[in-house]
Amino acid sequence: MTVKPLLPIDDVVLTPVAFRDPPLMTAVGVHEPWALRTVVEVRAGGLTGLGETYGDLPHLTALRTVAAALPGLDVFDTNGLAARVTAASGGDRPDRHGLTGASSVDKTRARLVAAFETALLDLQGRALGRPVSDLLGGRVRDRVPFSAYLFYKWAGHPGAEPDEWGAALDPDGIVAQARELIARHGFDSIKLKGGIMPPDEEIAAVKALRAAFPDLPLRLDPNTAWTPTTAIRVAEATAGILEYLEDPTPGIDGMAEVAAVAGMPLATNMCVVGFADLAEAFAKRAVGVVLADHHYWGGLRACADLAAICRTWDVGVSMHSNSHLGISLAAMTHLASAVPNLTYDADTHYPWLTTDVVAEPPSFLDGAVPVPTGPGLGVVLDPDRLARMHEDYLRCGIRERDDSGYMRSVVPSYDPALPRW
Amino acid sequence: MTVKPLLPIDDVVLTPVAFRDPPLMTAVGVHEPWALRTVVEVRAGGLTGLGETYGDLPHLTALRTVAAALPGLDVFDTNGLAARVTAASGGDRPDRHGLTGASSVDKTRARLVAAFETALLDLQGRALGRPVSDLLGGRVRDRVPFSAYLFYKWAGHPGAEPDEWGAALDPDGIVAQARELIARHGFDSIKLKGGIMPPDEEIAAVKALRAAFPDLPLRLDPNTAWTPTTAIRVAEATAGILEYLEDPTPGIDGMAEVAAVAGMPLATNMCVVGFADLAEAFAKRAVGVVLADHHYWGGLRACADLAAICRTWDVGVSMHSNSHLGISLAAMTHLASAVPNLTYDADTHYPWLTTDVVAEPPSFLDGAVPVPTGPGLGVVLDPDRLARMHEDYLRCGIRERDDSGYMRSVVPSYDPALPRW
Repeated sequence: MTVKPLLPIDDVVLTPVAFRDPPLMTAVGVHEPWALRTVVEVRAGGLTGLGETYGDLPHLTALRTVAAALPGLDVFDTNGLAARVTAASGGDRPDRHGLTGASSVDKTRARLVAAFETALLDLQGRALGRPVSDLLGGRVRDRVPFSAYLFYKWAGHPGAEPDEWGAALDPDGIVAQARELIARHGFDSIKLKGGIMPPDEEIAAVKALRAAFPDLPLRLDPNTAWTPTTAIRVAEATAGILEYLEDPTPGIDGMAEVAAVAGMPLATNMCVVGFADLAEAFAKRAVGVVLADHHYWGGLRACADLAAICRTWDVGVSMHSNSHLGISLAAMTHLASAVPNLTYDADTHYPWLTTDVVAEPPSFLDGAVPVPTGPGLGVVLDPDRLARMHEDYLRCGIRERDDSGYMRSVVPSYDPALPRW
Repeated sequence: MTVKPLLPIDDVVLTPVAFRDPPLMTAVGVHEPWALRTVVEVRAGGLTGLGETYGDLPHLTALRTVAAALPGLDVFDTNGLAARVTAASGGDRPDRHGLTGASSVDKTRARLVAAFETALLDLQGRALGRPVSDLLGGRVRDRVPFSAYLFYKWAGHPGAEPDEWGAALDPDGIVAQARELIARHGFDSIKLKGGIMPPDEEIAAVKALRAAFPDLPLRLDPNTAWTPTTAIRVAEATAGILEYLEDPTPGIDGMAEVAAVAGMPLATNMCVVGFADLAEAFAKRAVGVVLADHHYWGGLRACADLAAICRTWDVGVSMHSNSHLGISLAAMTHLASAVPNLTYDADTHYPWLTTDVVAEPPSFLDGAVPVPTGPGLGVVLDPDRLARMHEDYLRCGIRERDDSGYMRSVVPSYDPALPRW
């Protein structure tokens, strides 16, 4: 038996795309009419591996610098990818919309590595005829359950017709949205994005969800909209109802203060967002659940490392989402399938998507995505869709996500500063 | 493109072997004339993957139970391997010679998983035509440096002729042994197994090594032979000489006491020997370097997890060794090649070995083993050698390693209790 030749990268193609996004509200504003992503195609030996990452222009610019340095790299050499990113990327770039705290060089690098690592693992799988889950230790579940991700929202973008979802601005609207999402996709758990309405209204929404769905796990994520005092009050009001409360208040110390008295675990994708945050957060017992997100933790293997760390420290693992396409849904599904202790239903914005770049988008069956068993990620690009969505990118005029600026354009007095209550 | 069929395990063959071992002294006794290992062959689809693990009878018996449960498992499903080990293995089994603390069910399982995981990764690599290092993220170094591992020893086993190494019972003997090991293999660093002689004699040996090898990093490992007070005294006497002091005293609390004042990092393979030990040890700042050993941490991927944890907590990583064959040397080399922060020269007993089961044993070049670039681990069994070494196992009469009992058979007053000084 001889060694197969190395599989060097021939070419990298980065395509920024835009897709219509409903006016989903967050603690720092509201989703603009178009959301951005970058589709990553890495070509090697006649095969193409796919990745998907953020579409903001500073990130895209950095991706292009790294991409130019990748030809010749063996697709199996993900350690070498990290080294080339380090060599090619400069300083830190802020991530304003991801709500992942202060920027740092490490965090910037992690986002760049992740963009390409997914594509390299896809290529490895395609070259080997094995699903990506096999490269991560083999799937421990054949289907990955996701939660119904609820948002306060207007009926439609200002000046436009109402969208198919309509308004959700009170408990009844939130429950109706949950019913619709569950009717379409069969989710077995529910997450409400909070930090929008005054806390008592969100407590009422949670209680309305509990009344409407007595058996489904519920979560609330106000994106650090509350002071510790308010967070403790909400935790007391929702004890016994929420499976976890996500980022109720800013900072590791604030989270630790709330966690010490809260009746449920606190989850985070805001105060523990990189490996450098783990030691302090765990020492202070600030978090009970860390939300993995391969896009900013540094890739699928980095998230597997994160999960190993959480297992070792007896901290739970769930999965975070930004607005994303089917490439990322496939990557998230492979990862979640192969990490034994990723046992919470994962977050995903995917049900809010109306156009995808992949030919046969993944679909939810009883709230779960079956783990693709084909080679690599198991999804392929539709070149026409990609071209159209790239044209939308060129036309839409948005180059950096700005939920706060968009909200301010509608509500001039809007102040995105947190905590708000 | 279609999915390649699963590669199910057809058969597992376990072969206990014995090999001649010199009278190398440790804090709990002296190596017996024969050392034991178990060679693991996992067969799937006409290919064979190799593993190597401990040879003690209780472990071998448990290996056999697990082996019987493995046919049908996909060789890519290392998560499934862990599940089958959990289902098939019973309670905990002590590891008396490994000096790895109290036994536990988790530690017993980790040793069983590791025995087969290496063979599955070898099979994966063979099936895919890629080296095991590629399955671990790609090698970051083409050669893995090892240290010259020095032992106090008699000239030969009692009643036998002196061996080729002769006696090493004082500083001159230790320096001579170092010269010989370095002349043969070119090592660039030195580790002395201590805890044998009174501490002042071992301090003198370290100073003699420093005088003889002014530029080589030095380590001393007394296997918890000292009280914290003695350990602090030795640390003071060797500050500025040792790159690290390994397991000077028992227990996390004792190590923390010494670490607080020692002028060098403390390393361990005795107080942090499983994932359950990490949180406490790191919180107490008991250790600055953890010695990975895939045989008891749960395999190569588990050691990569351990390295990720150590990187996150800013703790160093080195590599531990028991007496072993070329299969394990290849596995250690692949692992060390693919872990960026495994930056200390690794330990190995391999230079003390005189017979191996592999056809073309790995060899040291300037103190380092070139990372095999062939498929899998890159080593193949020599069936004749395997058969002879199995015959030696059957004839040698040893079924469990017992350094203390052997020492007591020579020195009836010998007491293995630690700490000794």
